[in-house]
Amino acid sequence: MKTMSVTSGFDDFYAIIPAGGVGTRLWPLSRQDKPKFLYDLLGQGRTLIQSTFDRLAALAGVDHVCISTGAHHVAAVRKQLPEIDDSRIFAEPSPRDSTAAIALATAVLAKRHGDQIIVGSFAADHVIRGKADFIEAVRQAVETARAGYVTTIGIAASRPSTAFGYIHEGPSLAAEIPDAPDAHLVERFVEKPDSATAQAYLSTGEYRWNAGMFVMRADVLLKHLHESRPALAEAIDRIAEGIVRDDEALEEAMHDARLEGKNPREAVDARDFHQFRDEAMSANWYGIEKIAFDYSVAEPLSLSGGVAMIPGDFGWDDIGDFNSVAALLPSVNERNVKILGDTDLVAMRDSAGDVVVPDANRLIALLGVNDMVVVDTPDALLVAPRARSQEVKAMVKYLSEIGHDEVL
Amino acid sequence: MKTMSVTSGFDDFYAIIPAGGVGTRLWPLSRQDKPKFLYDLLGQGRTLIQSTFDRLAALAGVDHVCISTGAHHVAAVRKQLPEIDDSRIFAEPSPRDSTAAIALATAVLAKRHGDQIIVGSFAADHVIRGKADFIEAVRQAVETARAGYVTTIGIAASRPSTAFGYIHEGPSLAAEIPDAPDAHLVERFVEKPDSATAQAYLSTGEYRWNAGMFVMRADVLLKHLHESRPALAEAIDRIAEGIVRDDEALEEAMHDARLEGKNPREAVDARDFHQFRDEAMSANWYGIEKIAFDYSVAEPLSLSGGVAMIPGDFGWDDIGDFNSVAALLPSVNERNVKILGDTDLVAMRDSAGDVVVPDANRLIALLGVNDMVVVDTPDALLVAPRARSQEVKAMVKYLSEIGHDEVL
Repeated sequence: MKTMSVTSGFDDFYAIIPAGGVGTRLWPLSRQDKPKFLYDLLGQGRTLIQSTFDRLAALAGVDHVCISTGAHHVAAVRKQLPEIDDSRIFAEPSPRDSTAAIALATAVLAKRHGDQIIVGSFAADHVIRGKADFIEAVRQAVETARAGYVTTIGIAASRPSTAFGYIHEGPSLAAEIPDAPDAHLVERFVEKPDSATAQAYLSTGEYRWNAGMFVMRADVLLKHLHESRPALAEAIDRIAEGIVRDDEALEEAMHDARLEGKNPREAVDARDFHQFRDEAMSANWYGIEKIAFDYSVAEPLSLSGGVAMIPGDFGWDDIGDFNSVAALLPSVNERNVKILGDTDLVAMRDSAGDVVVPDANRLIALLGVNDMVVVDTPDALLVAPRARSQEVKAMVKYLSEIGHDEVL
Repeated sequence: MKTMSVTSGFDDFYAIIPAGGVGTRLWPLSRQDKPKFLYDLLGQGRTLIQSTFDRLAALAGVDHVCISTGAHHVAAVRKQLPEIDDSRIFAEPSPRDSTAAIALATAVLAKRHGDQIIVGSFAADHVIRGKADFIEAVRQAVETARAGYVTTIGIAASRPSTAFGYIHEGPSLAAEIPDAPDAHLVERFVEKPDSATAQAYLSTGEYRWNAGMFVMRADVLLKHLHESRPALAEAIDRIAEGIVRDDEALEEAMHDARLEGKNPREAVDARDFHQFRDEAMSANWYGIEKIAFDYSVAEPLSLSGGVAMIPGDFGWDDIGDFNSVAALLPSVNERNVKILGDTDLVAMRDSAGDVVVPDANRLIALLGVNDMVVVDTPDALLVAPRARSQEVKAMVKYLSEIGHDEVL
């Protein structure tokens, strides 16, 4: 299964894309059945997960990128990313948070390629602008991971955001890891702060945003999990074992087909090689602890000096809400109006600073409407001030409470 | 053709309902192809034209109510008002303003019922609350009209509106017309004023709103038009002549059917008895001067003491814009939100004072939206502050300029 990677220095690096979150604050564009990573939120012709894949495939090679996602999103992911082989899509029967997602992919990759490989986890719905800076940061992260550190990439905090956790930078590791001159130990991870605290963090120059990017040697991660979360680690191990037994069954069937003079792909296409995985999932998945990777791995390991950070100074955004969408879209006029979709569907008079999403092929007429979000979808319409973009999540919760599940 | 009227004192009274204006300021609810009089803007189960018909039929009798409307609205009017006989719907091939509309109906009615009848014109899209007060005002207007005056009903000006023309009240006519104790001469008509002027009018107590309601003897109106607008009067007369020749042809055919022992209605149903009308329309309609009744009749006649006014103190509104709609609808909650349509389609958080029209069967979610108009139709959405309701007309003009004729 060894393949060429595109960028040198990444031969033993595998990228994992956990594709999970719905992106509730982007409702009614994002839905439970169509989460935000499936949308082209920048209007650039590629969805967020496609862009994430492009970025990582350019770095590690197509065959070194895998995706962990909910079983009900697999069809949509396959459709958007036909390049990804079925064996590199890990379908979760139910959400079990990021530790399980990253651990399962890592365990399978370790069994397939050896536990000295480096794995890196990168969310499916983030936007990164500076491609070269990103590659350099990941390269240094891979070097640092090779030295045994769980390595995160700390995003330059461009404003005192209260929407992200922060990373407090510790001493430099440059002397220890010459190939990663920007590496530092992580002093500690801190939760999403209030506004004053965020401002204080920024003024020290020692804090960066935690974007949940982690790069590490497979054996380092798996060993830590076996020690700190043995039940989770063992359940994951059994499921990974099922998946590689499926791999072997598939290989065997293709081998047999070759001996019989058949096209091996065609010979196996109609058959299902997920029997061992499905059995192991049934027996082990549902009992797995739901815990974020930050809590299970990053925070505890940082206390014992096991976590490093590479500063990431590429443009980054998680497009959490419509304000984030607005920040990333070009203005359609001198009044700072942003439109995600067909601009011909929006007619404005005396309107400025709005974020408009015409997603229902209807004309949207705005008269004297300033700094508002208007999201028009075939079955639901949202109107809100931009300043309240974060509260869309609460609106969705409210819709659920009053029984509007049909639009969630 | 003589029929019983429902209320005494109205035997020789005929009501004309000009159903013309689109109601552009109610876009996107109202459209060129579906003007506002076809909508149930109060959510009471009857459209504006149906309510207008109900009010006038209760007073004058079903057979004494007729409608002037655009030829392309006739089918919709017939569907909403199956009670009205085809002979009392006057179809205009193209808009020629209110003088032509009122004059044609009057000329036809005069030929059918004699020119001493009293005609009254009442717009199809006004809302009137005090039914008894309305009947009493019209009764006095009919008495005043019988005495030879073109008689308008002046609406109590409840606020210094700049959206209406005003009527300056002159001396009482009670001594001259004992059956109309509230009748006054009209001193003059004044155009829509600016805000300060409107305030000054109100402070005198001598000004009322001009709602365009006019009651007069047929011969008085037709004589005035023959003198002041001879070309218009003659064109109208020729078309009216065509229409009554159609009447006679229809009567004749029904008479023949009766002689042959057939059901006379069934015998004529499949035939078209509009030949003379259509010929006369083709030859005369398109050259008719476009002029409002206020300019052709009310203003010039008022200068020579020929116009009277009866005060109308019933609740009245012309529902000119979404603010008017809001004023007439009950609030759905303690936050003064008004919804025209299915309230289950509107979900609100921290929103107050809004006017919401869910007309597309989609969920409308409002988060922190105050004092806005949100009108949701299948092919167009309008968002605007309530304070700018009047400017919706300019928005529609703009949409036409930028080529969005498909939603006008």
